[in-house]
Amino acid sequence: MITLYHRSDCPFCWKVRIALAELQIEYQLVDTLLGEKHPEVIKHNPKGSVPVFIDGKTVIWESNTILEYLEDVYGPGKLYPGSPAQRSQQRLLVSYSDTVIGPALRDQVFEKRSKPEAEWDWALINTSEQAWRKCLEQLEEWLGDKPYFAEQFSAVECALLPRFGIAETYGAMAYQDFPQIARWFAQMKQRRSYINTYPVSFIQSNI
Amino acid sequence: MITLYHRSDCPFCWKVRIALAELQIEYQLVDTLLGEKHPEVIKHNPKGSVPVFIDGKTVIWESNTILEYLEDVYGPGKLYPGSPAQRSQQRLLVSYSDTVIGPALRDQVFEKRSKPEAEWDWALINTSEQAWRKCLEQLEEWLGDKPYFAEQFSAVECALLPRFGIAETYGAMAYQDFPQIARWFAQMKQRRSYINTYPVSFIQSNI
Repeated sequence: MITLYHRSDCPFCWKVRIALAELQIEYQLVDTLLGEKHPEVIKHNPKGSVPVFIDGKTVIWESNTILEYLEDVYGPGKLYPGSPAQRSQQRLLVSYSDTVIGPALRDQVFEKRSKPEAEWDWALINTSEQAWRKCLEQLEEWLGDKPYFAEQFSAVECALLPRFGIAETYGAMAYQDFPQIARWFAQMKQRRSYINTYPVSFIQSNI
Repeated sequence: MITLYHRSDCPFCWKVRIALAELQIEYQLVDTLLGEKHPEVIKHNPKGSVPVFIDGKTVIWESNTILEYLEDVYGPGKLYPGSPAQRSQQRLLVSYSDTVIGPALRDQVFEKRSKPEAEWDWALINTSEQAWRKCLEQLEEWLGDKPYFAEQFSAVECALLPRFGIAETYGAMAYQDFPQIARWFAQMKQRRSYINTYPVSFIQSNI
């Protein structure tokens, strides 16, 4: 049985949950809290962060390595479909989501998550909004009129959907300005793997 | 013909050069300078950084995605050998090199690279040394008495060797305190793929 140590609203953990749901893999979840140093997580991961994924003797503590492992074991071609060239473009988009979109949204999310609205630093939020808009422009161009970023649902959606879910929850700028992205996200939100992995904390709170 | 836009002493670029050398792939190098915004790099990479790898119509601007592409096209099993579980542990070590070792050494390298010795901030350098020592302790444990981190030479060495080459050049703490690591690095330094990809700038300067 696979075990996933995670935090419900962590985008890297949510990415893994969507991939597991798409592959229809059964697993058990162990919840951890923001800032918590869970003893099992610390034991297995030199960085001490979630997600931590355990499949028998195999322990993996980095979300993209978990996806590559799932691709190796349950794929190939389920998460990274197509030719080596196509797979490379999908991996670049996953990296873009992790290293460009994540930092773009981070300040805004941290600000809104950690303080009452009266204390929000709007200069910080506005800078984050500008960075997020730049990401949306880039994504709109990459998506074009296709139903998915790749030829079919792929790891790219696993990585991007949590970012959009978080952006929406924290009231980041309307992606509706970007018609292709708006169409894509409206479609993706109906997908079972998105609905069934949606963060419990987003449902419970009204941020 | 493959083209690689790179910077000679960038650890991510050097990682790719070692992988290409190990696979005996012919390619042409285009040098860029520290801080330079090379027009071809900016055109292809939304982040504007090197490495940028071009193989016909395929453009890849992230070092680990370049390695996965090489594995897909020229492997499989050349850079990430073995079972899915073994490959996952190799990918974790590559990630550890990028996200833990890199930041551990960064302050020390930046300080020593950008200022004359009289102006070095020793508090910063000492903190970097402590972080690097922690990495060495962890690597010593993972390596044990094996000749390589995995069952054979792999992407793990492609990622780690540039970090050790940089640490040595900038006078970071003696890895000789760690006998397994010292043995491994002494062996690896004799490898053609290391010697033939060694940064020109390290040979020319005496830092």
